[in-house]
Amino acid sequence: MIIIIKRGLKPENIQDVLNKIKELGASPHIVEGREQMTVSVLGKTEKISLNSFEVFPEIESVLRISKPFKLASLAAKPQGSEFNIKGVLFGPTHFNVMAGPCSVESENQTMRIAKAVKKAGATVLRGGAFKPRSSPYAFQGMGLDGLKILQMASKETGLPIVSEAMDYDGLKMMVDYVDIIQIGARNMQNFALLKELGKIDKPILLKRGMSATVEEWLMSAEYILAGGNSKVLLCERGIRSFDTQYSRNTLDLNVVPILKSLTHLPVVVDPSHGTGHRYLVAPMALAGMAAGADSLIVEVHDKPEEALSDGPQALLPSDFESLMEKIVGMGKIMGRNVQTSIPQKKVS
Amino acid sequence: MIIIIKRGLKPENIQDVLNKIKELGASPHIVEGREQMTVSVLGKTEKISLNSFEVFPEIESVLRISKPFKLASLAAKPQGSEFNIKGVLFGPTHFNVMAGPCSVESENQTMRIAKAVKKAGATVLRGGAFKPRSSPYAFQGMGLDGLKILQMASKETGLPIVSEAMDYDGLKMMVDYVDIIQIGARNMQNFALLKELGKIDKPILLKRGMSATVEEWLMSAEYILAGGNSKVLLCERGIRSFDTQYSRNTLDLNVVPILKSLTHLPVVVDPSHGTGHRYLVAPMALAGMAAGADSLIVEVHDKPEEALSDGPQALLPSDFESLMEKIVGMGKIMGRNVQTSIPQKKVS
Amino acid sequence: MIIIIKRGLKPENIQDVLNKIKELGASPHIVEGREQMTVSVLGKTEKISLNSFEVFPEIESVLRISKPFKLASLAAKPQGSEFNIKGVLFGPTHFNVMAGPCSVESENQTMRIAKAVKKAGATVLRGGAFKPRSSPYAFQGMGLDGLKILQMASKETGLPIVSEAMDYDGLKMMVDYVDIIQIGARNMQNFALLKELGKIDKPILLKRGMSATVEEWLMSAEYILAGGNSKVLLCERGIRSFDTQYSRNTLDLNVVPILKSLTHLPVVVDPSHGTGHRYLVAPMALAGMAAGADSLIVEVHDKPEEALSDGPQALLPSDFESLMEKIVGMGKIMGRNVQTSIPQKKVS
Amino acid sequence: MIIIIKRGLKPENIQDVLNKIKELGASPHIVEGREQMTVSVLGKTEKISLNSFEVFPEIESVLRISKPFKLASLAAKPQGSEFNIKGVLFGPTHFNVMAGPCSVESENQTMRIAKAVKKAGATVLRGGAFKPRSSPYAFQGMGLDGLKILQMASKETGLPIVSEAMDYDGLKMMVDYVDIIQIGARNMQNFALLKELGKIDKPILLKRGMSATVEEWLMSAEYILAGGNSKVLLCERGIRSFDTQYSRNTLDLNVVPILKSLTHLPVVVDPSHGTGHRYLVAPMALAGMAAGADSLIVEVHDKPEEALSDGPQALLPSDFESLMEKIVGMGKIMGRNVQTSIPQKKVS
Repeated sequence: MIIIIKRGLKPENIQDVLNKIKELGASPHIVEGREQMTVSVLGKTEKISLNSFEVFPEIESVLRISKPFKLASLAAKPQGSEFNIKGVLFGPTHFNVMAGPCSVESENQTMRIAKAVKKAGATVLRGGAFKPRSSPYAFQGMGLDGLKILQMASKETGLPIVSEAMDYDGLKMMVDYVDIIQIGARNMQNFALLKELGKIDKPILLKRGMSATVEEWLMSAEYILAGGNSKVLLCERGIRSFDTQYSRNTLDLNVVPILKSLTHLPVVVDPSHGTGHRYLVAPMALAGMAAGADSLIVEVHDKPEEALSDGPQALLPSDFESLMEKIVGMGKIMGRNVQTSIPQKKVS
Repeated sequence: MIIIIKRGLKPENIQDVLNKIKELGASPHIVEGREQMTVSVLGKTEKISLNSFEVFPEIESVLRISKPFKLASLAAKPQGSEFNIKGVLFGPTHFNVMAGPCSVESENQTMRIAKAVKKAGATVLRGGAFKPRSSPYAFQGMGLDGLKILQMASKETGLPIVSEAMDYDGLKMMVDYVDIIQIGARNMQNFALLKELGKIDKPILLKRGMSATVEEWLMSAEYILAGGNSKVLLCERGIRSFDTQYSRNTLDLNVVPILKSLTHLPVVVDPSHGTGHRYLVAPMALAGMAAGADSLIVEVHDKPEEALSDGPQALLPSDFESLMEKIVGMGKIMGRNVQTSIPQKKVS
Repeated sequence: MIIIIKRGLKPENIQDVLNKIKELGASPHIVEGREQMTVSVLGKTEKISLNSFEVFPEIESVLRISKPFKLASLAAKPQGSEFNIKGVLFGPTHFNVMAGPCSVESENQTMRIAKAVKKAGATVLRGGAFKPRSSPYAFQGMGLDGLKILQMASKETGLPIVSEAMDYDGLKMMVDYVDIIQIGARNMQNFALLKELGKIDKPILLKRGMSATVEEWLMSAEYILAGGNSKVLLCERGIRSFDTQYSRNTLDLNVVPILKSLTHLPVVVDPSHGTGHRYLVAPMALAGMAAGADSLIVEVHDKPEEALSDGPQALLPSDFESLMEKIVGMGKIMGRNVQTSIPQKKVS
Repeated sequence: MIIIIKRGLKPENIQDVLNKIKELGASPHIVEGREQMTVSVLGKTEKISLNSFEVFPEIESVLRISKPFKLASLAAKPQGSEFNIKGVLFGPTHFNVMAGPCSVESENQTMRIAKAVKKAGATVLRGGAFKPRSSPYAFQGMGLDGLKILQMASKETGLPIVSEAMDYDGLKMMVDYVDIIQIGARNMQNFALLKELGKIDKPILLKRGMSATVEEWLMSAEYILAGGNSKVLLCERGIRSFDTQYSRNTLDLNVVPILKSLTHLPVVVDPSHGTGHRYLVAPMALAGMAAGADSLIVEVHDKPEEALSDGPQALLPSDFESLMEKIVGMGKIMGRNVQTSIPQKKVS
C-alpha cells in the first residue's frame, strides 16, 4: 500500500499518519520526491482498508499494491482449478458447452430441448426455475415445479443441471435438484447470499454484475471461497455500455485473458445475454472461445416465439448444432479438448 | 407498443405477427411507410413483454409507447406523494435532511453524532448496522447490537431512524427498530427482497443501482408498490462512469427533475456516496437541492479517521452545520420549507 | 512515479528497469514489501511517459504521483485566473451567464434573441455559425455570414460573442468577429487544432469531450496554455452514460468542485447540451451554480419550433428571465457577485 | 418516423404538429391508442431531424424508423464492398492483417519491423508519422520524414502503407506517400476533416470514437461516402468503459456482427489499442476474427522497451508469427481465405 502525501508537507507534518500505520500493525517507509512525499505501508496490508488512510487531510490518495483477493488469485493455485461435475470437466484442459432454454416452461418443452442440446454436444443443461425479471408483472418462473422438471430432464439425458438461485429460500430448495447453482448479474454483490453460498457443497456459476469491475467480481468470488466453497466458475455475460440500440449488453471479452492472468477459477462466456439477439450469438460464442474461455453457456429454444422469456436471443437447435461443429473445429486451433459427451458411468 | 417490420415485407408476410397480437388480447393497426411498415399494438399492452414480438424474424424492433410502470407513475398521483414519518414530512412541500455516521460503531459514537446532527437541523438519523462490503475481510456491521444502539439514539433525540437491510433476515429484525428501511444500490434488483418489502408497513429508501436506468429503478419501486407498500423514497447515490480518479461515483442530478416529471415518489440525493470525498459533499448537496430534490442523506462523523467505514466522505459536524445554514438559505430561493426540527408531540 | 514490480522478483532481477530510470535522468529508490517490491522514480518525471516503463516484463504497473498538467494546475496560480472579456469578468469572484440561440439562422432571429437575453441579464451572446452535426445531411451553419450577423448583434447590444470553431480555416475567419472561441466536445482532443489555439490571442471555451476524463480535459487545456494562450475556460456539457432515454447526456457536476481543487481556470456549465430537454435546463443550471461553477452557457430561442438545430433544449426568453432571477438570488447564498450588465465604457 | 403524443391529447390539440409534418413535405397518419396517440410521418423522412418535432410541447418523443445512413447501409450494396489496395483485398472473401510499429522512429527501426511483419504474413504495413498524444510534452511523431521512411519501407517490401492523418495539412502531405489514410478515434467526429476525406481518392480506415454509438460511427462514414469517396474501412479499437485497471479500453466485438448486418463496408479490429497490453493482444486478435472481422491491425515492435509510443501493447515479431499461424488455421474454420502475401505484379 502506498500513500501519497499532499504537496508541500514534510515528514514532521504527518506524524498522525505514521502512527495510524503502526497502530494497524504495519511499518511506514517514507520516500521524499522532488515535489511530493510518499509513504509505503509495509507488512500484511490486504485486510487494511484504503479508507483508513484516505480520511487523513494530509493524504492526497492511497494505492493498493497487493491484490485484495487471495484465495481467488492465480498465485493460490498456479496450475488452475479443475472441477469434475458428474463427469463434466471444467478447467484448463477441457472445453464444455452448457445449453438449454432460458426458462423451464413445461415438462414437454424442457425434455425436448434437453434432448436436442445433448444430441448436439452440450454437456450441461441450463434452465431457469426462478427468474429475475425487471417487471413485477412478467413471468417469474415455475419455482419448485421447474426444479422437478429439470431433475427429470437430467435423469433422462444424463446431463448435469445449472439453474439460478435468487435468494436463500430458493438456494435451499435447489440444492437437492441441481448440480451447479447460478448467481445472476444482479445478485453478484448480494453479500448476504454470497455468504450462504460459501457454506454449501455445490459449484457456483457466478455471473459478473452489469457494471462490476474485475476486482469487484473476484472479491465476490472471494466471499464464496472464504466461506469454504472452493468451486466457483466466473461467467462474463455482458456489461452495460452507452450503446444499446443494436445489442442489449456489451460482451467484454477482454476479461477472459485478464481473468486467466489473475485467477485459477474457470471462465465461462454467455453470448446469449451478452448480446440479446439470436444472430449475434454464434459469432460471439466463437469469439469467447477464441479469447480463451473454458466454457460457454448458450440459450436454446425450439419454439422461441412461444418462449416465456428471452426468446429473441435463443438459438434454434439446428443453429446450435452448427455452432457446436465450429466449436469442435476451433478446439483444434486453440489446443482445447472439446468435451461433447458425458462418460457413461457418470450418468445417474 | 409499435412494431417495426423489416424492410421489404408486405402485410401478407406478417400474418404470424398479427395473430400473436390478437392472441395476447390486443389489436394490430398497420401503417405502411415508404420504406418500411409499422404495426401499432392497441389495447392493454403494459403487461405484454417486448420479447413476445422481438422473437419473430419478420420484426426489426419493438418500441413501447406507454410506460411499463403504473403505480409509480406521476399519472397515478399527480399531486405527488407525501409521507409523514414520525412528524418528518417527505414530499413536494417540505425539504428534509437525513444525517449520521456510515456505520454504527458504538453506543457512544452513535449518541454523540446523533446529537450533533440533530443540533444542526437534521430530522432523521442514518446509521448502518448491516454493511454491504465488497471485501469479505472488511467490517460487516454490528448487526442487532447496532440496531439497539440506533433505537436508543432515536429515543434520546426524537429522530426517526433510517438503516439498511441486506436480506430477509435482517429486514425482519429491523422492522422493530427502525423507521425507514434503506435498500442499497447493490440490492436494487434483488427481486426476492423487493417482494418482501412490498409486504411490510415501513417506508423504503430505495437507492439507485450503480448502472440502473431510470426505468429499471422505477420498476424496482413498482415491485414494492405492487406488493402493497406505497411508501417508497427514491435515492440517487451516484452512477458508475469511466472516470473514477477524482470521484468514486458520478452523481447523476439530471435524474432529479426527470423523476419529478415521471413519478409521484419523493426524491432523495446522497452526496456522500455520490462523490466519495468530503470536500465534494457540500457543493453537491447544494446542487442536489438546486436540482429539485426533496431530501438529502449525508454522512457525518466527528472522528472520521477512526470510522470503520467510509470515513473519507464523512462531513465533520461543524461542516454539516455550515451546510445546513446554506440549505435553509437556499430553501427560500427554491420555494422550499426546510424542516429542521421535529414537532414536539411526535417525539416518542 | 512509482513502479510496481511483479511478485517474486528481487532487486537483482530488475537491473534493466533501474538503468532505464537513470537513462531518463531520474533516480530509482527501491522499497521491498512483504510480497512485492516497488521502485520510486525520483526527479523531474512529468515528461516521462508511463509507457517507458510499462513495457518491461518485470513490471506489473506504473503509477504517476505528480500531475501530468503543470500550467493548468492550481499550484501554478493558487488564487485562480480571472479574465476580463470586454468588461465581463470570468473568475473566482464574478458569476456570468452566456446565452443565445444554438445556431445563427438569420439577422432578424439573432438580433431579437440577443436583445432578449441582454434584457434578462446575460453578459455574453452565444450563437453558432459553424455547426458540428452528426449527419452530413443536416444544417451545417451559416458560416461567414453568421459571423457577420453575430458582430452586428454585438455592436447593437454591447455583448461580447462566443462562437464555435471547428477547424483551422474557421478559426482564422472567426478571430476578427468573435470574443471567445468555443471548441466543441468532439474536438477536445483534436490536437492539431489545440496547437493552433495556443497561438492566438483570444479566450477559448474548451468543452469537455463526451467521455473525457478530468485529466485528459486538463491536458487538452495544457496544450493551449503550453502554446502560449493563457485564457482557457473549461465547460462541462454532459458526458455519455448508459441511460439516454430521458436525457441526452449526463451532466457531471461532480467535476465542478473537482476542477476547482485542481486548476486555476474558470469553470462553465452548459445545462442545455448537458440535458437536451428544455424542462431540465433551469433546474440543472441552478444545480451547476450551486456546485460552484463560475459561469453558465444557456441556449435561448424565441421560436424553438422554427430553430434549425437543438430547438428542444432551448429556453424561451420568458423562462430565461425567471432563471436569471433565481440565479441572482442564489448568488447571495453562494457568496457570488452575479454580473448582469456590462460596464458602459466597455461597450464598443 | 413516429411521433408519440403526450397522454390525454386529442387530434384537435395537435394541429401545429400536423402542419409541421406537411410543411416538411411528409404526410401524417394518426393512430389513437388506449392511453396515447401516435402520429406516423410518412414519406421521405431521412433528412428530417428529430429535433424538428421534439420541440413541440404536445410531443413526448420522436422515434426514427428508417436508418439515418443511406450510402453506408447494407441495402446500398447487399453483397458487401471489396477494395483492392495494391493487390491486397479487403472485403467479404479475404482476410488480411495489417501490422507494424505504433510510430515511425527511424529508417532502421521501420525497415527492420516492416521486413519482420511481411515475413510473418502481414499484407499492409502500419506506422504513425503524426501521433495524437494526450500530453503536449509527449513525442508527436516524425512528420514528413516519417512518411518518407514509410515510402521506402513500402518500396523495399511491397507492402502498402496505412498511416494516420490528424488534420488537413497532414492529409495533403500524406496522399503522396501512403495507401490507406487512418483517422483516429479522437477525430471520428471531426466533421471538417471528414468532409476533406470525401474529396480524396484514397481508402480511409475510420476508427470508432471512444464513446461513439454504432449509428454515429456509420454517420461519420456517411460523411465520407456522401463527399464522393466510397472506400471506407471501419475499425473497432475499444470503447471507454468503467474498468480500466487491467485493460486500457474495452474491445467491443459485438459490433463486428452488428456492422455486418448494417453496412457493406469492411470491418477491421485493432486488438492492440483495444486492450493496451501485449499479453491480451493475441487472444483478442483471434476473438476479433472469430466474431467475423474482415481484417486486423496489430502493433509489432522488435524493441518495445525503446519504442517512443505504446511499447507495452506491441507484439514481438516472434509472437506475431505465432499469431499469424493461428489466424491461418482459424481461417479454415471460419471459411475465410487468409491472404498472407501480395501478388508479385502488384509490387511497385
